[in-house]
Amino acid sequence: MIVGDMYQKREAGRKKVLAAIAAHGGTTLLSTGITGDDARMALAAVEAGARLIEPNHPALALARGYKGVTNMHAAENLRHEIKMEQMAEVVNGIRNVVGPDIYITVGVPGTFAEVVPTYLSDSDMAMLARAGADGLHTHKSTIEDLKAVIELGHKNGLLIDAYIASPRDRHLFGIPADKPSDVAEIAKQMQDVGTDFIGLMTGMSYEGVAAGEIAPEVRKRLDALLGAVTVPTIAEGGINTDNFKAFIGTGVNIIVVGTAIDDLAKAGVRQAVTTLLNQ
Amino acid sequence: MIVGDMYQKREAGRKKVLAAIAAHGGTTLLSTGITGDDARMALAAVEAGARLIEPNHPALALARGYKGVTNMHAAENLRHEIKMEQMAEVVNGIRNVVGPDIYITVGVPGTFAEVVPTYLSDSDMAMLARAGADGLHTHKSTIEDLKAVIELGHKNGLLIDAYIASPRDRHLFGIPADKPSDVAEIAKQMQDVGTDFIGLMTGMSYEGVAAGEIAPEVRKRLDALLGAVTVPTIAEGGINTDNFKAFIGTGVNIIVVGTAIDDLAKAGVRQAVTTLLNQ
Repeated sequence: MIVGDMYQKREAGRKKVLAAIAAHGGTTLLSTGITGDDARMALAAVEAGARLIEPNHPALALARGYKGVTNMHAAENLRHEIKMEQMAEVVNGIRNVVGPDIYITVGVPGTFAEVVPTYLSDSDMAMLARAGADGLHTHKSTIEDLKAVIELGHKNGLLIDAYIASPRDRHLFGIPADKPSDVAEIAKQMQDVGTDFIGLMTGMSYEGVAAGEIAPEVRKRLDALLGAVTVPTIAEGGINTDNFKAFIGTGVNIIVVGTAIDDLAKAGVRQAVTTLLNQ
Repeated sequence: MIVGDMYQKREAGRKKVLAAIAAHGGTTLLSTGITGDDARMALAAVEAGARLIEPNHPALALARGYKGVTNMHAAENLRHEIKMEQMAEVVNGIRNVVGPDIYITVGVPGTFAEVVPTYLSDSDMAMLARAGADGLHTHKSTIEDLKAVIELGHKNGLLIDAYIASPRDRHLFGIPADKPSDVAEIAKQMQDVGTDFIGLMTGMSYEGVAAGEIAPEVRKRLDALLGAVTVPTIAEGGINTDNFKAFIGTGVNIIVVGTAIDDLAKAGVRQAVTTLLNQ
């Protein structure tokens, strides 16, 4: 087992994340959706200042029109069918165009709470790391499963971002914890088993988040996370260009945004096509 | 050889193109770039009214960050390295999300004037047709080469769009013809060998096209094409949301736009990222 080299790789990755957080005043962006898997849009995101990029397998299902899925909910149901080689190819393409200083964390079949048995191997991890990944974007649903992924990832120089789910979310995107005290307890356990960045799912099932607002129960859960750990923290789910400031206001270190970026890219396409058709 | 079925397939494809031209007042859009190879953006284009979609191999090289290319000129130099299977997968994914009524024409290694020997086989054509392609987007540089592609394509139910190049273009995107009389002569030859849609390269090397304007020599060459053939006509190259009306004004049936659509998608991404980073 190669220990020293992979430790160095992990520390190089961590340095990228900490530098991005510092450069963006304490809260940076993990840019996903189309900016995670289309090299043209990843480069546009990086040129606009993004320093953390996340390709993931459900978004790739959408990108490739896999079995005709056209929304994230449908994509989540067959994301495990995406091939590991495809994910490695995507990581490699993004790395090619964004250069070595951008942090890339990748979600692959097996790092999420998959709906069919989906196993991760040592050689999968090595392939992703060699393709250019710095980290694994994970959404396992128990500490035991998370620990298994951390061991595989760390061994191959990959840092781990993992999430606390809301038990009422439509898809289980992490280890469920409802009450703020449970969030704090789970967060500490996640840190203890070596999670490098700890996130909270903040939106998938929440309704009525208006511009600049954050639901009170989300705020309490996020504060519980922030107070419980020393590693960088993340908020993911339902964050968009209208409500992001409320999340930044909590002091969380990283906000994850995909759909809201895709929506603006789509708006650009729609505007172009509408104009060109003289409508 | 299957003749009747493939004739029916070609006529079904032709009907889609003629219907789009009629629906859009005589001039429709062939939407390419990111709308040709990303299923999310293809759907956005179709939702905005586009009815003709074009995936192609140089754009795919950009999409996938292949060997780190980040601009079309670099992509043109290695486009022949993209695999036929990748192009078929892209066609299939786009077809999955846009449905049966959208016309898909695909550029693949071998349908352009490639910089290394690149051969098209009967089984390649069958694979593309079965993946969901209606046509082949071609840029061969001689009538003989075009004729060979037409035979292969037609045999497999694929219609052919082919182009007249400007001899001064940086990349040779078709059969070169400079003077309007040469354009007319080549266009007739192209129609005689069975080209289904005939286009003129209108912009790659032209400078100084201002909003709403069209360079006088382009206009003369385009008029020569329009007067020479009875099949639907196409203008490609340098057309954007500022100058497109001048092209529509010529009466050409289809305008091809890629880069200008990509640019607006990128602008959407940049706007989202800039906002989210609170810059």
